[in-house]
Amino acid sequence: MRTVLTNATLIDCVVAEPRARASVVIDQGRIREILTDGRQADVRDAAAINLNGAYLLPGLWDVHIHPDYLSAADMPLAEQVALFGHRLMTALTESGIVGFRCAGAHHFMDVAWKRAFDSGQYIGPRLFACGHFLTTTGGHFLTSGHAQECDGPYGFVKAIREQIKNGVDHIKLNLSGGIMGPAWDRHWHSFLLEDELRAAFAICRQRDFKVMAHATNPDAVKSAIRLGVHSVEHGYIMDDECIELMLKHDVWYVPTLAISHLTPNQVGNEWEREWLAQRNLAPSLCCRADAAADVHAHWFRKALDAGVKMALGSDIRPLKDAGLLEMGLWSRDGASPWQTLIAATRHAAAVCGVGDDLGTIEVGKIADLIVVGANPLDDINNVRRLKLVFKEGRIVSDKRGAGAG
Amino acid sequence: MRTVLTNATLIDCVVAEPRARASVVIDQGRIREILTDGRQADVRDAAAINLNGAYLLPGLWDVHIHPDYLSAADMPLAEQVALFGHRLMTALTESGIVGFRCAGAHHFMDVAWKRAFDSGQYIGPRLFACGHFLTTTGGHFLTSGHAQECDGPYGFVKAIREQIKNGVDHIKLNLSGGIMGPAWDRHWHSFLLEDELRAAFAICRQRDFKVMAHATNPDAVKSAIRLGVHSVEHGYIMDDECIELMLKHDVWYVPTLAISHLTPNQVGNEWEREWLAQRNLAPSLCCRADAAADVHAHWFRKALDAGVKMALGSDIRPLKDAGLLEMGLWSRDGASPWQTLIAATRHAAAVCGVGDDLGTIEVGKIADLIVVGANPLDDINNVRRLKLVFKEGRIVSDKRGAGAG
Amino acid sequence: MRTVLTNATLIDCVVAEPRARASVVIDQGRIREILTDGRQADVRDAAAINLNGAYLLPGLWDVHIHPDYLSAADMPLAEQVALFGHRLMTALTESGIVGFRCAGAHHFMDVAWKRAFDSGQYIGPRLFACGHFLTTTGGHFLTSGHAQECDGPYGFVKAIREQIKNGVDHIKLNLSGGIMGPAWDRHWHSFLLEDELRAAFAICRQRDFKVMAHATNPDAVKSAIRLGVHSVEHGYIMDDECIELMLKHDVWYVPTLAISHLTPNQVGNEWEREWLAQRNLAPSLCCRADAAADVHAHWFRKALDAGVKMALGSDIRPLKDAGLLEMGLWSRDGASPWQTLIAATRHAAAVCGVGDDLGTIEVGKIADLIVVGANPLDDINNVRRLKLVFKEGRIVSDKRGAGAG
Amino acid sequence: MRTVLTNATLIDCVVAEPRARASVVIDQGRIREILTDGRQADVRDAAAINLNGAYLLPGLWDVHIHPDYLSAADMPLAEQVALFGHRLMTALTESGIVGFRCAGAHHFMDVAWKRAFDSGQYIGPRLFACGHFLTTTGGHFLTSGHAQECDGPYGFVKAIREQIKNGVDHIKLNLSGGIMGPAWDRHWHSFLLEDELRAAFAICRQRDFKVMAHATNPDAVKSAIRLGVHSVEHGYIMDDECIELMLKHDVWYVPTLAISHLTPNQVGNEWEREWLAQRNLAPSLCCRADAAADVHAHWFRKALDAGVKMALGSDIRPLKDAGLLEMGLWSRDGASPWQTLIAATRHAAAVCGVGDDLGTIEVGKIADLIVVGANPLDDINNVRRLKLVFKEGRIVSDKRGAGAG
Repeated sequence: MRTVLTNATLIDCVVAEPRARASVVIDQGRIREILTDGRQADVRDAAAINLNGAYLLPGLWDVHIHPDYLSAADMPLAEQVALFGHRLMTALTESGIVGFRCAGAHHFMDVAWKRAFDSGQYIGPRLFACGHFLTTTGGHFLTSGHAQECDGPYGFVKAIREQIKNGVDHIKLNLSGGIMGPAWDRHWHSFLLEDELRAAFAICRQRDFKVMAHATNPDAVKSAIRLGVHSVEHGYIMDDECIELMLKHDVWYVPTLAISHLTPNQVGNEWEREWLAQRNLAPSLCCRADAAADVHAHWFRKALDAGVKMALGSDIRPLKDAGLLEMGLWSRDGASPWQTLIAATRHAAAVCGVGDDLGTIEVGKIADLIVVGANPLDDINNVRRLKLVFKEGRIVSDKRGAGAG
Repeated sequence: MRTVLTNATLIDCVVAEPRARASVVIDQGRIREILTDGRQADVRDAAAINLNGAYLLPGLWDVHIHPDYLSAADMPLAEQVALFGHRLMTALTESGIVGFRCAGAHHFMDVAWKRAFDSGQYIGPRLFACGHFLTTTGGHFLTSGHAQECDGPYGFVKAIREQIKNGVDHIKLNLSGGIMGPAWDRHWHSFLLEDELRAAFAICRQRDFKVMAHATNPDAVKSAIRLGVHSVEHGYIMDDECIELMLKHDVWYVPTLAISHLTPNQVGNEWEREWLAQRNLAPSLCCRADAAADVHAHWFRKALDAGVKMALGSDIRPLKDAGLLEMGLWSRDGASPWQTLIAATRHAAAVCGVGDDLGTIEVGKIADLIVVGANPLDDINNVRRLKLVFKEGRIVSDKRGAGAG
Repeated sequence: MRTVLTNATLIDCVVAEPRARASVVIDQGRIREILTDGRQADVRDAAAINLNGAYLLPGLWDVHIHPDYLSAADMPLAEQVALFGHRLMTALTESGIVGFRCAGAHHFMDVAWKRAFDSGQYIGPRLFACGHFLTTTGGHFLTSGHAQECDGPYGFVKAIREQIKNGVDHIKLNLSGGIMGPAWDRHWHSFLLEDELRAAFAICRQRDFKVMAHATNPDAVKSAIRLGVHSVEHGYIMDDECIELMLKHDVWYVPTLAISHLTPNQVGNEWEREWLAQRNLAPSLCCRADAAADVHAHWFRKALDAGVKMALGSDIRPLKDAGLLEMGLWSRDGASPWQTLIAATRHAAAVCGVGDDLGTIEVGKIADLIVVGANPLDDINNVRRLKLVFKEGRIVSDKRGAGAG
Repeated sequence: MRTVLTNATLIDCVVAEPRARASVVIDQGRIREILTDGRQADVRDAAAINLNGAYLLPGLWDVHIHPDYLSAADMPLAEQVALFGHRLMTALTESGIVGFRCAGAHHFMDVAWKRAFDSGQYIGPRLFACGHFLTTTGGHFLTSGHAQECDGPYGFVKAIREQIKNGVDHIKLNLSGGIMGPAWDRHWHSFLLEDELRAAFAICRQRDFKVMAHATNPDAVKSAIRLGVHSVEHGYIMDDECIELMLKHDVWYVPTLAISHLTPNQVGNEWEREWLAQRNLAPSLCCRADAAADVHAHWFRKALDAGVKMALGSDIRPLKDAGLLEMGLWSRDGASPWQTLIAATRHAAAVCGVGDDLGTIEVGKIADLIVVGANPLDDINNVRRLKLVFKEGRIVSDKRGAGAG
């Protein structure tokens, strides 16, 4: 049966202007017709849902996530699998995050949930999987449990082939250090030697797998671009040449502001404060984040102003809060609500390779949609006033009765 | 907010007579008041659900289950975890099975899902976990992947301690062979030596863990009872002394008729035929089952008539069909609908140790309930006409629109 | 004692015309004299076998085979060894396949049976062994159990040296993906990196072992030829340059049509339908095969018309059916009976390096022969009307009483 | 179609007198009718084979064998599997040995060939399998490769359970040393401690598996009998109590004379000399055998005279010569041809548990038969004058043209 959403204020993420009194016709999971300016759709034989002027948007995405960082000692594997599924599904229903791109997970938990969602066993978000994130011995964030240490050109080649054989969608390479790690794990250090870099990118190119590269300094960013990276993650420190190369090679940038911005010294609203209270970061890590934050914000803004293709990824947990917090930080760092919104919708779907089917509200696309009670183009945090979540045209979360929109 | 179920035909599983025009008041997940014969509950400030005369029962249980038998080569572990959760949740929502007792699972998948349900991450059935089922090298049904081979008294003791440390509720011991196995795995053979038996039961007694014993011949059944077993599973072959000992020691019996009764030569209704078509059993296994079925049915009926405490467990898959099929087989083998129903509710909860909170509809108990469209005391298969499933007083499945009750 | 085959219709696989009323004299396993046009051989002190005009041919070959794909969980190793020998010997006696070239087997089962046949322990076909087929981690058809994953130049070098030390005849390299595999195992992808390729071919060249290369796309085919391959297997996708290079470098091509052609949508006769019914291919694999079949057939025909040296290999199981089915497919795709027949005899022996001793009926050659009841140059499927199989001049199968030729 | 063997001199191994001019009717693998004294069977619609007065006997058995003793360094596993099958089949066709009981083999080669023969993949003898022979660390004949070292009661229990799970027919326990071994492996030493002995026999009794016990001194023999052994193997040194206990407990004895009797000092005929020349025994082992031979012969004769149930097993290789040599040695040590013959037929089948179906020529039994050209009751070595071998009524070896009977 067809579904008709009526009386929507439509933010299609194609054009920056909301359109009032819109109707969207959905059939068999896809958008079949869009009518604006009060034109009426045929609602015979259809389920009509009157949105009463609420804002209809493409569902949100978070294109840089991990499962919770838990060791086997802290939680047995089967429980970690269950927990990760719970986190993903809660993010869909509680926050309207309809798509995720994973940046590292152990035991191919991301592939497992991708398959469980795709097969209809569970109703969850779309998930793009990479398996482990591949780093060197003594590389980045080994305590997460999600990293795999590789050494030598063929150490990387073998590990990449193993991820492929386990069903991943893309390869996550870790080229350099981070902010949240031990003393020797510094974001201004690059970790791979030249022949490791070359071999890792060569096998990905040959097998036609896109590389998602953790690159946190100019050397790492430029190496990645030179070797054909699909997306640069983090980019805490860059230079003008990085920006130019990203533009020239049409490379995606996913800044993950949350990593450097959510410290006691920086948090600015109640959501961030709540998150921080639960996160309980070590003071030494907060110092490192504080020290990195301005430079990070600077290059974020430079890239944004230069027109680099940018998508929204949070790199934090829990997943239901992560993307929303990152959207707030984009705004705080100078992105307009529109820039933030398309980074979390149209651009996010595109970085995952599904831009033709998802990320905007256009005829023919899949109806992964959300309805929010106030205009996110006025204040990006209005995406938090969630009323409805649709996956393939079906309501998967209805919060209309939960309070005033 | 209170919920009031009105106009129910109440089968409380305490007394064998349904009571018409009953109302049940639920608050904070528990049954607070039961009114019969048309007496009215106070519905102010309550959500009232008019059952229109439909039958209100305690939710059903299946106290002998396993996850699907899948090797790591067939499906990676994380996918198996997701699948098991899906199977459990589907059984709750599609068939109204509100409780399960596991009889063997690898990687503590049962403990993981028990915790995921208990913590509210997922809405699923109650689950009582045992981890692996413990057998000897060359023991029973090793191909399931869920068995762990132990040898020697301390081989068993160590394995039992490992199950305990991983959070199980009870210990599953495999004392003898089975019907569905290789040629050397015969149900008339007992597998443990005397000192293995003694040590296994001794450590369970010392740690206060109940033993659920796979025992399929008189020797195994009597050994189990002599050593303090909580429940005898299967009992394909018994003798009069077994029955006497079960009565004398107040031991539970879970007959699992489905194992010997569901072959091409024996299936008797469309549900059984459908199951069989999908199960695709090897002819040699069907022969073994056919050969065992009459004796199995004989001792089932003997135990029933003698008044042995019996609970309903299926031992088959998929879980949404398993318990319902087993209920039909009880009926076919001579149990009355009432005997079958209390085996799947009151007795099932009791065998799991939660008889004070679950298994009947009585004031003070937790409101895990189902509503079915026709009287299961007329025909036990009427439990298939499922309309509503409640867990702790909340609707978790509503099939009222899915067809005529 | 000499054997004289009289009154044969001789198809010697040297000239395309059958010769009537021929006699062939065999002594000590070799062909000593060939008389045609009714000229009589000396039959004193000889065993004379009157073929009554039936067709005398060189025995058939299948130069691309594997043992059944069975995991150790499905069948213990010693049973797999016995089964492979059974399959080979049955192909000799039931179908007249006198020679096989193996394309991958675990535990050097092919070497073992080669030696068991060569030493006279068993009467079986000639067998050319390669041990494992060598691929990369995440390479082709890992589920077969016959592949060995190698990574890095010296990963390949070491694996090749191990095959050599275990007594193989040639090296089987897997350069690219396949049709029958998981989603990431695609025939348009090449798997080895350039330095892996170079190293693998270099050690084979140095040790004088011929390379049999699984190459399924133009890149893989050209890499193989450039580096000195002996035979290109499959060639599902090629281009004109591939054909030119094969001609220029005098490289063998073994097309294995059976892999892409035997699906429900494509099967065309009762033998193919029977095979398919037993094979029970997954629909997803059939789709992949259907999608690949036309291009495969196109390049098969192009190679054939261009005069590329081609030999017949099936790549399917069971071995007694495999080669015969492949011969039918050559015919269906446009090869004449003569082209098909020499591909399965003269050319097959040549690709195995034994063209001087086998593959045709010529004086001095070893008498591995078959007799069939109807002319295979009229209809290639007449090779199925098998009457006699000779190995080294001795009858190893006599089906003359089994029905009308 | 029925087969009728006519004009036989029948030695049925039930009564000691040959019966002349006998006919035996075989249908569907079994003996349907036996006619003696020239009475004629109905040969219409039957294949009649005129034996021209030759001697028709049950096929021979050898109930104590091993595969060749080869290390993995000497021959890869797959080749050993092929070789063992060859040895078994050659013994059937060259020597008329229609049944074997294995006393130890690695990798369950015996189970594999048993299954390959039973399934009809190969035409071979009947084979009763035990997997490894189980001894202690530092136990007997470890260099054979077929022994498995076990220690402690549950070391044995676990190993026995492993053999069971791999499909064996009986359990081979090694209780004491041997003649052919290193200096510390002496046949007057017993190897198992009392609790190891008890545990090993207990698990066999519980799982209903018969024990075949290597027992070479009075202590080992009596322990075995006391604990319920099925057959005592070797018995190099015994005492009167051993003989009494074997009689009292109805235990089988398999003396394996070949082990102590075939040395340069003892060999007495051309077959023994030929065997010895190929066997190339170390002088030190010959000394040990010579020293043991008289005592061995003494207790062999004592047991025979006392009426102990005895079956013929050789313990040597190659299998086609082994049983025949052992028969000659029984004769040399004082057994009559009749005693020897029933030890190698009726008693051998009985020790394997198939006495109801095999071992004699009686109506209803399976037609595993041999035909020899001279009377073995005159000279037991006349079993070497083999003309025909039948398995289930089909000729599997025809040596009638191979020389004068």
